[in-house]
Amino acid sequence: MNRQALVQAIADKQSYLCVGLDTDITKLPKHLQQHPNAVFEFNKAIINATKDYCVSYKINTAFYEAMGLKGWAAMEDTLHYIPNTHFKIADAKRGDIGNTSSQYAKTFFEILPFDAVTVAPYMGEDSVRPFLEYEDKFTIVLGLTSNKGANDFQKLMVSNTAKDTNLIPNFLQGNTEEYLYKKVLNTIAQWGTKNNLMFVVGATQASDLASIRDIVPDNFLLIPGVGTQGGSLQNVSKFGLNKDCGLLVNASRAIIYASSKNDFATEAAEIAKQYQVEMGNYLK
Amino acid sequence: MNRQALVQAIADKQSYLCVGLDTDITKLPKHLQQHPNAVFEFNKAIINATKDYCVSYKINTAFYEAMGLKGWAAMEDTLHYIPNTHFKIADAKRGDIGNTSSQYAKTFFEILPFDAVTVAPYMGEDSVRPFLEYEDKFTIVLGLTSNKGANDFQKLMVSNTAKDTNLIPNFLQGNTEEYLYKKVLNTIAQWGTKNNLMFVVGATQASDLASIRDIVPDNFLLIPGVGTQGGSLQNVSKFGLNKDCGLLVNASRAIIYASSKNDFATEAAEIAKQYQVEMGNYLK
Repeated sequence: MNRQALVQAIADKQSYLCVGLDTDITKLPKHLQQHPNAVFEFNKAIINATKDYCVSYKINTAFYEAMGLKGWAAMEDTLHYIPNTHFKIADAKRGDIGNTSSQYAKTFFEILPFDAVTVAPYMGEDSVRPFLEYEDKFTIVLGLTSNKGANDFQKLMVSNTAKDTNLIPNFLQGNTEEYLYKKVLNTIAQWGTKNNLMFVVGATQASDLASIRDIVPDNFLLIPGVGTQGGSLQNVSKFGLNKDCGLLVNASRAIIYASSKNDFATEAAEIAKQYQVEMGNYLK
Repeated sequence: MNRQALVQAIADKQSYLCVGLDTDITKLPKHLQQHPNAVFEFNKAIINATKDYCVSYKINTAFYEAMGLKGWAAMEDTLHYIPNTHFKIADAKRGDIGNTSSQYAKTFFEILPFDAVTVAPYMGEDSVRPFLEYEDKFTIVLGLTSNKGANDFQKLMVSNTAKDTNLIPNFLQGNTEEYLYKKVLNTIAQWGTKNNLMFVVGATQASDLASIRDIVPDNFLLIPGVGTQGGSLQNVSKFGLNKDCGLLVNASRAIIYASSKNDFATEAAEIAKQYQVEMGNYLK
């Protein structure tokens, strides 16, 4: 699914909701836990219940890998079950030297038919490029994440100043300092286009969204952290929406574990619908 | 395998070689490519040929994931084939919010019996902690990597200075600037000990190793980049060795693809032996 189709789907559904399938077998309703394909059965029910209210599904690879071979199979089954009307994200946070990133890109864009994969930026350009080379696929690079640890490195002040000019006061050098995450956004935005590159920005960081939009006005942003992590859909939408919408707001636990009982799918649909209705208002 | 056993294995074998199993099915000798379990067969032959000369094997998960389910199975088979006398590393570069990193840690430390996994630092403390919680397992965090892209972010100058003190010249603030990768090493070294924490430092960055040793004198360093990537074993050893050795030097392509013909295992053994002999000299 390319950018144009995604923008159209958002307009048609009046929704920019992404449902996160972080399916943890220990959290499934009791009647499902004994099923031989419990995770896939659960995901099918969630997809059936929520697909009218969302435009995207995000599969968190960690939860599938943690079940070994059987989990990888459940991930493949789930991916193939998601309708092609929906944008399919592998939340995998991969990234390595060039020849290895090429293998990861092959995994998520050829072997598995995802539309997008999340990528960590620490290793720089040759670790990101192999993902960007795929036409009509999206690389979603971590910018400012939703967790507390985002403060440890992403919010460090960085400078491009060479070390031997340290003795020149900053105010004589112009404004050479910025947050690391802004440097990451600024730099990586040059490597791709709005048609193959998105960024992760946590909903818990909504106050930073306005200045992030100055750096990447046209790229879609994948926004985790609404729901269980406490981010506000209203604030995210206020500061993050652009003329094409430009947002995919993800909720995982708040939707898929809305109920731990037999009515889990109905309750998931209810929460997804609430998000959709709220989003419809912001899109007007 | 804990630190003490690793140090003993290095002393016994006079080797700190790690053989990287970045097994790409398209690069295997022709006679093997048709085998139904080509990758596992190849890995078995490489392990049999090299195990006397190395103390560790590193499985690069990307190459296995790129073969889908069958690849994941080949990874499990390979892991179980590696003798318990050897330190087993999952080179997976994982890292995510806490509840997700917990799933990755479970994958590589419980479901798969690796001794260590590589972790990306960008998302900060709560993304690294879940790995460190496993006793006698090692978290190997990316410090300064071997690729060209290491310059993009890892070598940015960072400061802890709050933004509103920007107008105070640096020389009045003390030495508050350092490379991002040094800040990462300094910070993360506080989260673990030499018994559960290592760092990745590329062999192509040997000139930085002396100052890295000042920051993390006791932690083991996993050093990729010798061989095909051009790093020098001599320089790495000169600046990186500590009193317990403290190094695991990885070579992948230079060993496993030493020959593309039927004699691939014999040639792999020959190259591994050359590394071991050279390492033996540096350990004296």
